[in-house]
Amino acid sequence: MLGNFSYKNATKLYFGDDSLKYLNDELPKYGKTVQLIYGGGSVKKNGIYDAVVGILKENGKTIVEDAGVMPNPTVDKLREGVRLARENNVDFLLAVGGGSCCDYAKAVSVSVNCDDDPWEKYYIRFEKPDCAIIPVGCILTMAGTGSEMNGGSVITNHEQKLKIGHVFGEDVMPKFSILNPKFTMSLPKRQMVAGIYDVFNHICEQYFSGEDDNTSDYLAEALMKSVIHSSLIAVDNPQDYEARSNIMWSATWALNTLISRGKTTDWMVHMLGQAVGAITDATHGMTLAAVSLPYYRTIMPYGLPKFVRFAKEVWGVDPKGKTDEDIANEGLAALEKWMRTIGVAMSLGELGVTEDMIEAIADATIILDGGYKVFTRDDVVKVLKASL
Amino acid sequence: MLGNFSYKNATKLYFGDDSLKYLNDELPKYGKTVQLIYGGGSVKKNGIYDAVVGILKENGKTIVEDAGVMPNPTVDKLREGVRLARENNVDFLLAVGGGSCCDYAKAVSVSVNCDDDPWEKYYIRFEKPDCAIIPVGCILTMAGTGSEMNGGSVITNHEQKLKIGHVFGEDVMPKFSILNPKFTMSLPKRQMVAGIYDVFNHICEQYFSGEDDNTSDYLAEALMKSVIHSSLIAVDNPQDYEARSNIMWSATWALNTLISRGKTTDWMVHMLGQAVGAITDATHGMTLAAVSLPYYRTIMPYGLPKFVRFAKEVWGVDPKGKTDEDIANEGLAALEKWMRTIGVAMSLGELGVTEDMIEAIADATIILDGGYKVFTRDDVVKVLKASL
Repeated sequence: MLGNFSYKNATKLYFGDDSLKYLNDELPKYGKTVQLIYGGGSVKKNGIYDAVVGILKENGKTIVEDAGVMPNPTVDKLREGVRLARENNVDFLLAVGGGSCCDYAKAVSVSVNCDDDPWEKYYIRFEKPDCAIIPVGCILTMAGTGSEMNGGSVITNHEQKLKIGHVFGEDVMPKFSILNPKFTMSLPKRQMVAGIYDVFNHICEQYFSGEDDNTSDYLAEALMKSVIHSSLIAVDNPQDYEARSNIMWSATWALNTLISRGKTTDWMVHMLGQAVGAITDATHGMTLAAVSLPYYRTIMPYGLPKFVRFAKEVWGVDPKGKTDEDIANEGLAALEKWMRTIGVAMSLGELGVTEDMIEAIADATIILDGGYKVFTRDDVVKVLKASL
Repeated sequence: MLGNFSYKNATKLYFGDDSLKYLNDELPKYGKTVQLIYGGGSVKKNGIYDAVVGILKENGKTIVEDAGVMPNPTVDKLREGVRLARENNVDFLLAVGGGSCCDYAKAVSVSVNCDDDPWEKYYIRFEKPDCAIIPVGCILTMAGTGSEMNGGSVITNHEQKLKIGHVFGEDVMPKFSILNPKFTMSLPKRQMVAGIYDVFNHICEQYFSGEDDNTSDYLAEALMKSVIHSSLIAVDNPQDYEARSNIMWSATWALNTLISRGKTTDWMVHMLGQAVGAITDATHGMTLAAVSLPYYRTIMPYGLPKFVRFAKEVWGVDPKGKTDEDIANEGLAALEKWMRTIGVAMSLGELGVTEDMIEAIADATIILDGGYKVFTRDDVVKVLKASL
């Protein structure tokens, strides 16, 4: 059954190899001073930075530079960004980068006009923004997080060894996002693959929960199949525009709230992965990959019908003459084979995790209750050890 | 390849068996005078009218009654609605009914402040609205058209024997829509089935076009599978909330622009069906059903790979040892079997069409060029005759 829900997602998307030009249509809607948010400088090498700055200048904007957003944006960087926005009376936040830049921009947007410390307010107390929100726009250079069309924002606190996401509401979603698949093509292959696994796992997190018949699960399967199909083309040829455009579009719909409507969701792989990220600073998508198979093999018996459906519908497992357990295991074996083919991290060891870090990671793992099995701390430790 | 596109759909949806209460959240955002649009009075029998009027009064609204919107809203009714809105300085249009009421409300919304005749301006000259648009909200009582989350509006001109749709832009989409699956349960079964086929055909119209690999096609298949699955439950037990809720949700996503992003579309079944509707005033979904199989069997050789995919992915046709033509034909046979099972009209004869009406229907058929075969007038006549 579809449970009761509301849905609104007003982010305007411009998609395609000519989409940057629409920045000209959007900029006049916002004020003069633009905080230009980007990461480690790759956008300067590939020309995207220059193109964006050119359009900002043509539109008479004053640019406030905010460079150096790291892959796992920190609370220290967030506080710096808030200060920058306040000092310059910034009217608009323009993120140019991957999900980290978009997440960071949203965190700044809800913090500039609030007195409280953003970490305490949003990531510890999970409060709603109660101050004026600075509008955000995104120019996406990596497909993965879906941050371009949702209210999510993950921030890392190294001191407290925590990496926590807050899903803000409609008002915090980007006003517009520009999605040019060509912008994703200069990424190193390992980053592309990490993004692809992030997308796939977003879908799994919403799929592997609940037992109702639900249109959302059909849509989830469609996105999974499209991602699997395109990923196999993209790992062979990262310059394949068709594959990269489908991955980018699937990424957006994998986490813009559509496929979670009317159903419960899991998100424990993300909780485990984010805890790994908090301790190791490893690439987000790879942390998810490293814990996924041990996690799914653990919960499979508790959600067997969905794992059987996953095997048949997503991986085309022929059920004839097999037990449900066999079918479900074959589905997870197909998932494992695909993960090895595209080249994600298959263990936490590959990400620098050692056995002595397990307890700290378990401490940093937030336990949610939407999945097929509600974990204890012991379960967390077991899955982490099995992932080493 | 995903072609370049933009996407924005800001309609807020409230979904579920308690969703009417959210009308209280929305009404304060709009002015005092509300034009209350509904159809033949079934909403008075099932209590929805009283519930809505109660909420309007609690919110201090002045109600302008606009009853009698017919299943195929006419240009005469539209002109009357525009006059009513002008005379009463209406601030908000609230449609309570199926797609006809929503379509009609949108047509009124773009016409109140324009001097031109709406039929000439929007349905003959296909102009964009260039005057202030009155905001629209919908309370849906029938699943089918998707009008609750798009800019579409179909109007019929009996004098000119034309039934024409105009897809308006983002600004004309409903500000909110309230979707309560229980509201659809008092519909006669034949209306439910007509709505289900309308939904399915919306998906087909967007699916059977183009040869690119495209995430949109995966999503289209997902929606088709969910509709087929739920329809078989709903025809057996129209009171099955789970099935009716999934049909309602699939209907919204079947025609809110998502599954057409980045690809070409066909829409010839709708052109044929609307022409039948213009001449006979038959139920929309049934006109589509009556012409569908002759149409798809005609275009199948020109889009064979997609029809093979349709057979395998949507209907589970086993391709082993079969030619592509065999597989495609088996898919269309499965479609036919499903149509007969749910009980749609299988011929134009059932809708009162006789051979002497064929030329007039062909005259009223607008020929589009997005499908696998661009039709001539002769092709139109042939398909109509084969549908008799």
